[in-house]
Amino acid sequence: MIIVMEPTAKEEDIIRVVDRMESLDFKIILNRGQVMTVVAAIGDKRLMDPKALEAMEGVREVKLIQEPFKLASRESQRFDSIIELGNGVKIGGNERPVMMAGPCSVEHDLDGLLRVAHAAKAAGAKVLRGGAFKPRTSPYDFQGLEEVGLQYLAEARAQTGLLVATEVMDSQELELVAGYADIVQIGARNMQNFKLLKAAGSIDKPILLKRGPSATIKEFLLAAEHIMHAGNSNVILCERGIKGFDSYTRNTLDIAAVPVIKKYSHLPIIIDPSHGTGRRYLISPMSKASLIAGAHGLMVEVHHDPDKAYSDGAQSLTIDQFKVMMKEIDSLIDNVIMKSIEEAHA
Amino acid sequence: MIIVMEPTAKEEDIIRVVDRMESLDFKIILNRGQVMTVVAAIGDKRLMDPKALEAMEGVREVKLIQEPFKLASRESQRFDSIIELGNGVKIGGNERPVMMAGPCSVEHDLDGLLRVAHAAKAAGAKVLRGGAFKPRTSPYDFQGLEEVGLQYLAEARAQTGLLVATEVMDSQELELVAGYADIVQIGARNMQNFKLLKAAGSIDKPILLKRGPSATIKEFLLAAEHIMHAGNSNVILCERGIKGFDSYTRNTLDIAAVPVIKKYSHLPIIIDPSHGTGRRYLISPMSKASLIAGAHGLMVEVHHDPDKAYSDGAQSLTIDQFKVMMKEIDSLIDNVIMKSIEEAHA
Amino acid sequence: MIIVMEPTAKEEDIIRVVDRMESLDFKIILNRGQVMTVVAAIGDKRLMDPKALEAMEGVREVKLIQEPFKLASRESQRFDSIIELGNGVKIGGNERPVMMAGPCSVEHDLDGLLRVAHAAKAAGAKVLRGGAFKPRTSPYDFQGLEEVGLQYLAEARAQTGLLVATEVMDSQELELVAGYADIVQIGARNMQNFKLLKAAGSIDKPILLKRGPSATIKEFLLAAEHIMHAGNSNVILCERGIKGFDSYTRNTLDIAAVPVIKKYSHLPIIIDPSHGTGRRYLISPMSKASLIAGAHGLMVEVHHDPDKAYSDGAQSLTIDQFKVMMKEIDSLIDNVIMKSIEEAHA
Amino acid sequence: MIIVMEPTAKEEDIIRVVDRMESLDFKIILNRGQVMTVVAAIGDKRLMDPKALEAMEGVREVKLIQEPFKLASRESQRFDSIIELGNGVKIGGNERPVMMAGPCSVEHDLDGLLRVAHAAKAAGAKVLRGGAFKPRTSPYDFQGLEEVGLQYLAEARAQTGLLVATEVMDSQELELVAGYADIVQIGARNMQNFKLLKAAGSIDKPILLKRGPSATIKEFLLAAEHIMHAGNSNVILCERGIKGFDSYTRNTLDIAAVPVIKKYSHLPIIIDPSHGTGRRYLISPMSKASLIAGAHGLMVEVHHDPDKAYSDGAQSLTIDQFKVMMKEIDSLIDNVIMKSIEEAHA
Repeated sequence: MIIVMEPTAKEEDIIRVVDRMESLDFKIILNRGQVMTVVAAIGDKRLMDPKALEAMEGVREVKLIQEPFKLASRESQRFDSIIELGNGVKIGGNERPVMMAGPCSVEHDLDGLLRVAHAAKAAGAKVLRGGAFKPRTSPYDFQGLEEVGLQYLAEARAQTGLLVATEVMDSQELELVAGYADIVQIGARNMQNFKLLKAAGSIDKPILLKRGPSATIKEFLLAAEHIMHAGNSNVILCERGIKGFDSYTRNTLDIAAVPVIKKYSHLPIIIDPSHGTGRRYLISPMSKASLIAGAHGLMVEVHHDPDKAYSDGAQSLTIDQFKVMMKEIDSLIDNVIMKSIEEAHA
Repeated sequence: MIIVMEPTAKEEDIIRVVDRMESLDFKIILNRGQVMTVVAAIGDKRLMDPKALEAMEGVREVKLIQEPFKLASRESQRFDSIIELGNGVKIGGNERPVMMAGPCSVEHDLDGLLRVAHAAKAAGAKVLRGGAFKPRTSPYDFQGLEEVGLQYLAEARAQTGLLVATEVMDSQELELVAGYADIVQIGARNMQNFKLLKAAGSIDKPILLKRGPSATIKEFLLAAEHIMHAGNSNVILCERGIKGFDSYTRNTLDIAAVPVIKKYSHLPIIIDPSHGTGRRYLISPMSKASLIAGAHGLMVEVHHDPDKAYSDGAQSLTIDQFKVMMKEIDSLIDNVIMKSIEEAHA
Repeated sequence: MIIVMEPTAKEEDIIRVVDRMESLDFKIILNRGQVMTVVAAIGDKRLMDPKALEAMEGVREVKLIQEPFKLASRESQRFDSIIELGNGVKIGGNERPVMMAGPCSVEHDLDGLLRVAHAAKAAGAKVLRGGAFKPRTSPYDFQGLEEVGLQYLAEARAQTGLLVATEVMDSQELELVAGYADIVQIGARNMQNFKLLKAAGSIDKPILLKRGPSATIKEFLLAAEHIMHAGNSNVILCERGIKGFDSYTRNTLDIAAVPVIKKYSHLPIIIDPSHGTGRRYLISPMSKASLIAGAHGLMVEVHHDPDKAYSDGAQSLTIDQFKVMMKEIDSLIDNVIMKSIEEAHA
Repeated sequence: MIIVMEPTAKEEDIIRVVDRMESLDFKIILNRGQVMTVVAAIGDKRLMDPKALEAMEGVREVKLIQEPFKLASRESQRFDSIIELGNGVKIGGNERPVMMAGPCSVEHDLDGLLRVAHAAKAAGAKVLRGGAFKPRTSPYDFQGLEEVGLQYLAEARAQTGLLVATEVMDSQELELVAGYADIVQIGARNMQNFKLLKAAGSIDKPILLKRGPSATIKEFLLAAEHIMHAGNSNVILCERGIKGFDSYTRNTLDIAAVPVIKKYSHLPIIIDPSHGTGRRYLISPMSKASLIAGAHGLMVEVHHDPDKAYSDGAQSLTIDQFKVMMKEIDSLIDNVIMKSIEEAHA
């Protein structure tokens, strides 16, 4: 930890900081510059709140050296985490990228869901996505079918063999959702719902954790750390766009987050280009760009009749569009991505 | 609702949109420009998702005319909401601004809390703030005393007569927290925890709802709408800084949100300058600026020994600093704010 | 243009707006809703400032329907602009993506520049980039070699046959820079230096216009419109990262801007992954992602000894790293990008 | 300077960094932690680019300790700069806040300008603002009267005794503008037009420098540093709103920038609430909030007929509105602001 003192700090301020840190078993090195003094405190900085130090007299700023996440960090585990999703499907590391597809919400029309599921399966997807509990900005929007939606998803799984990924919104519903889901999703707006993160740490299903719209990568990895710290290390990260200032897209898709996270963490990272852009015409180019940048998978919204979708129709592909995209993506994965992985290992 | 068609839209695309909207009982006016056609659809737009329309062939964009919030809107209620907090304390409208003060977290040292509470009371605060359940970015930080913290707050209330505002993080704990609190706080990171909002709508305690760091004012008011829609119209809004790009402050305090919200909503709006800036030296100037801009109250972090605070010491005032600030604020309220309210009514 | 009236607007306010717009030869359609009235004004909205209307009594908001850019818009020209850069090199449309590479700044070491230029040429680049006039955040940083730098670039061109792209910072230096450059670059921080844009519109060299760090895509295309309006339609757009809140990258690279711009404009759009990320390890994945997303080219910083670069060493590739990346990129372009273009035309 | 090495850095990487810094006359202190090594390099860090170090093998990150601005810093000058504007008007320190008012653009109607000027003078303003050269996002908007506009401003000055503040957009026009202006303004979009900053450093008129919409405070102060470094230390800073994500305001007015800048710099700082919000109803509350937060002045748009303004009518006050606001502001300055300054000195 680096503690930068104010240029106006008095000698006694410096001594007080040194004493405080030594009492916490930090080893201290004083770096006295011409204008300012810098106190380097070496020790287990992860167990203390640097903000507290900033409250001390004469302290200008505290800079952390080490990343505050630990279990999620690349330093704690050099090799990539590969997570078993079920049915032999694995995600992470050098595994073939996993495609997840399905409607934003599970709707009353079970046949529509089944059509999407069969088409997704045929096109090569391994996971069916669909929301039974829906976080909605307005209380007047469709709030989801709840348990009936989960049953529909289970029916689609039974018919197709796809795995099911679906969102949980509240710790009280976790048991119910986890009873149906193969992958339990925590949405972007709940990324810092710490009770839910902790609860998710106590189950044995893989957790798909979406990045909050204003979360830094550090905050994102710390949210994963909450889950891991509570006992579940099967966390799949999902970048889905951050808050931006442009109106041509719903969010700003931060594709660079993929290689950044691969450098700082061993966890798998996928991309959701549907929420990440909010526009149908952007899904295919952003999907390919994400995979080339190293994403371990994609989560894409597909609807059998997007015009009539209860939610997010504008960012859903039709079944036919999804088929076309999957053909191109398969070719990209086969001819470029898997080949370059093989060459790296040859 | 204004539906802008693409310049390349075909006549059949326009007809399909018109038919769809008419089937939903909207009245249609076609505005045909030289380059584009614009479909105005008049009806109850609050009950339908405009994103769905954007999925239709030939549609470029859908623009909402009316605000999507209803119960929270100034249009639904011309006069200001004034909320009774207890002990005769009211907030909103032309009531004297309400000061809320206390430590970020309730800590093991009950005496410290009591010292802060007595000092806050003496200086003119009406509400004691303090977190018993703490949302923390890192799982390694102090997570709160939970029910013991609530008991400490109750003890401080018993001794001082201050009202208690404290945060609830999860719908499962709402009953417990509401059992102790006079005002139940929903934190910024839970602003779109819709299950919690809905649960908060079912109790009869006032809710202090903090703005999420990347929430637009529209999203903020829609979060309030969730609570009101579920039955509780006693919602106090709190601006506490939004995500910015500058490192001299922790967040960007959006003081303009105060007059904006007063124009579009009848709900009271207060400011939290502690989280809003993250720096102790900014609390006093930002507090005064917020009140002059029309805030109905302030929530300020005060600690008896900020150097040793478990959390947020750097943005807490000492008891002495709080006293000095309150003297200045009282003078500002008496000599400027209440006087200008009186003059407006004279 | 859609003029939304306040719910409290009086009939006379509406009449005044209608009269005003009719006096400007707009055709008016009144859309009277239950709560608000919406005035649709049809006519040449590009020639008037909608902000002025917002000043009128009773007006809540003015929404533009048509994009405010005209010459740069896809509507004004359906087919892609293909710009001749010299030596037979073309950029835009379905042309093979153009690689531009070179050091951030031209430095005193001419040999180093020549080494980079020869290596870039050998690896398949068509354009040598390098700054002789350098915009620097601090006055204490290296400010560029000015005309000597331009002479060095000319020498590198003479030896390699590469085209030269270099930045102009001020209208007074445009003639000088354009005398040496094949492509004149306008930097991100000058994107709204309107005098410079206008001056750039009066020369006959292609202009490479970088997106400002807080520019919306609309503002970006309007900056291009300034150049085109002044007479030069050979504008190449360059996305180079926008202001974000994360500290792992220098900027947030907005790759979705590529397909967005291709939808709304006919101009070529390239990506600068060096400034777009600020980190060397991100250049290769972001370069490939940009090309797959449809970029017409890349501008990459390459230095013969990045450790000792006067500027931006941390985001420069070494010559060897550039060679490796170019091999992968060439394979991507040949096997995926050009193939999919051919298939689309077959 | 603090150089954080990667956990994977080799001993030779550390040695290379140490050698490099020692060769630049830095004194080195090695801080070896369990996971990472941190190199503290003490010396004149302002004269070298830390980004270059980040390019070295094994370096994770370089953190600056000292602020990179020097002449603008509080450390270089403890007392506040007070700048003489002419006619005995001073700005900065404990001087009475200076009001600047006038239309966004100088328009063809000279009488209108004179009406505004006389009213501004009568209401207590000291400076007339108005643009003769106008930076406009679209080339189709009014671009300003240029020299005729300057002549109109001079006429208004002659009639009222007000000082004139007007914008220069390009180094070529600086001499012309400075020939008429008492205060030369550099606009937000030119904040990093370094040629213009340098040119502004060579004249002897005070410079009003506006903060760029995505500029950090550090970048803002470094832009001031460019002017000061070139010889002109009479720089007045102006916060005018930063890029935000909310659509109820044009920009996010960062009032906290006032006390932040007063802590880190000795230069005067004023606020422009017109651009800072873009909405007329927000000007008065934001003006008062800015003054209470410590602003040394305000720049406000006032137009004799905002409905017909060529630009920015929606954010201009009418003459009557300005009068009302000035009465309230005068009372605030007299009864609160100047009184608290006096008390601090008593």
